[in-house]
Amino acid sequence: MIRHPAFAPGSVWLAGAGPGDPALLTLAALHAIETADVILHDALVPAEILALAPAATRLVPAGKRAGGIHTPQLSINEDLIALARQDLRVLRLKGGDPFVFGRGGEECLALAAASIPFRVIPGISAGIGAASAAHMPITHRGVARSVVFATGEAGPAGGEVDFAALGRAADTLVLYMARQNIGRIAAALIAGGRSPTDPLAFLLDATTPRERVVHTTIGAAAAIAATLPPAATLVIVGPVAGIGAMLAPHRPEAEPSIRSAQG
Amino acid sequence: MIRHPAFAPGSVWLAGAGPGDPALLTLAALHAIETADVILHDALVPAEILALAPAATRLVPAGKRAGGIHTPQLSINEDLIALARQDLRVLRLKGGDPFVFGRGGEECLALAAASIPFRVIPGISAGIGAASAAHMPITHRGVARSVVFATGEAGPAGGEVDFAALGRAADTLVLYMARQNIGRIAAALIAGGRSPTDPLAFLLDATTPRERVVHTTIGAAAAIAATLPPAATLVIVGPVAGIGAMLAPHRPEAEPSIRSAQG
Repeated sequence: MIRHPAFAPGSVWLAGAGPGDPALLTLAALHAIETADVILHDALVPAEILALAPAATRLVPAGKRAGGIHTPQLSINEDLIALARQDLRVLRLKGGDPFVFGRGGEECLALAAASIPFRVIPGISAGIGAASAAHMPITHRGVARSVVFATGEAGPAGGEVDFAALGRAADTLVLYMARQNIGRIAAALIAGGRSPTDPLAFLLDATTPRERVVHTTIGAAAAIAATLPPAATLVIVGPVAGIGAMLAPHRPEAEPSIRSAQG
Repeated sequence: MIRHPAFAPGSVWLAGAGPGDPALLTLAALHAIETADVILHDALVPAEILALAPAATRLVPAGKRAGGIHTPQLSINEDLIALARQDLRVLRLKGGDPFVFGRGGEECLALAAASIPFRVIPGISAGIGAASAAHMPITHRGVARSVVFATGEAGPAGGEVDFAALGRAADTLVLYMARQNIGRIAAALIAGGRSPTDPLAFLLDATTPRERVVHTTIGAAAAIAATLPPAATLVIVGPVAGIGAMLAPHRPEAEPSIRSAQG
């Protein structure tokens, strides 16, 4: 019933593995995992998903501190090209979506320059998956007509997103890799006009059995961040985080949602 | 290998059906389609996806001009509650993702108020699916550290997104329902500081066999929009639309990408 394109030897597919829960793989990504000769995966792809590959598939950790080391992007690009030139079906499997903080664009440009045929399979981005699991409608009629996804990590040249402007312009903010800089980001949001009492939530290990949602405010975010256990963390800011808090008692199975004392 | 939670009679699942291509369904959404007693779907869910339901499943068009009529949201909320109270497994199936311009939050609040158990299954949002198909990495190191999803539709009270501010604050813009207002939006982006020559792309019927990508500029967007055939349309603005244009010759199978003469 579902038709998949042929995964031709000598080509590379870039696929998103979604936010963690194997049930949030797309049918296209599952097909790619079942068909590839070799899978270059980052550390955000859980073992349960890699286990879906046939036993003969070669699994290669690459990028985002996979296997404890961080593979530089240029070396990943070179590996993809070299493997494709060995006439293999090469799957580049990434947590989330390849084009949302996944560096998929750099890989596409390298493959195009090397004349390697490629295809991109989108995935559920971590922010989208986490919002669903935490019952936070990142857009909501009358409350949020725009949502921005931004990285909280400072750029290589120290360049950083202008959070004051972003907080003024967009209703909902979904922040990746923002936990470490949350104090600075919260200060910028407040400087831009957001109230310190506006809702902010930390979403930890979303869509996995370890999932935890911590509700707080922009003003209290830095103090709360310091108390959180290590985990893949997304931050959602805006009134929709408050809707998530209202709906928290209705979340199925999940760990009880935690409302911070300081929030 | 993949474990799905039990779809209990008397409960409602809200699921995203993705951007159009049935292969972009998640395994969780497919499981829901195969298990539901009744499916309330909007017009954005293609027939190929509804055909995956068993023959006995009741299919009910609801919302977003499904079946030629637009079902008001309140009446959909009431139908979901009434069907769940008949002890049915009720699936609310939406194009894209339930929480990205899908009004899923309103349905969750209504279900919670009626004490109906519910669950949310994210989907590939139209903008994410279209960006992948058009090879536009909506984030890209050194070029786009933030991406905003916004609606181009004016709100019920005439309230509208501040596109001038949004265009200044975010690197990439992914605009839903923006085709009709693109002249006004483009003027606001330029007023906010974007150059009229910056890349803008229209993505028509993305991920379907009718897919078409039209590359132009912010300044020429309104004139180009007037020449486009009817289609589900996303707009992507920013340097990443230019990367998509560079990569266009490498898109597999797709209709040839069109570079507008005025672009």
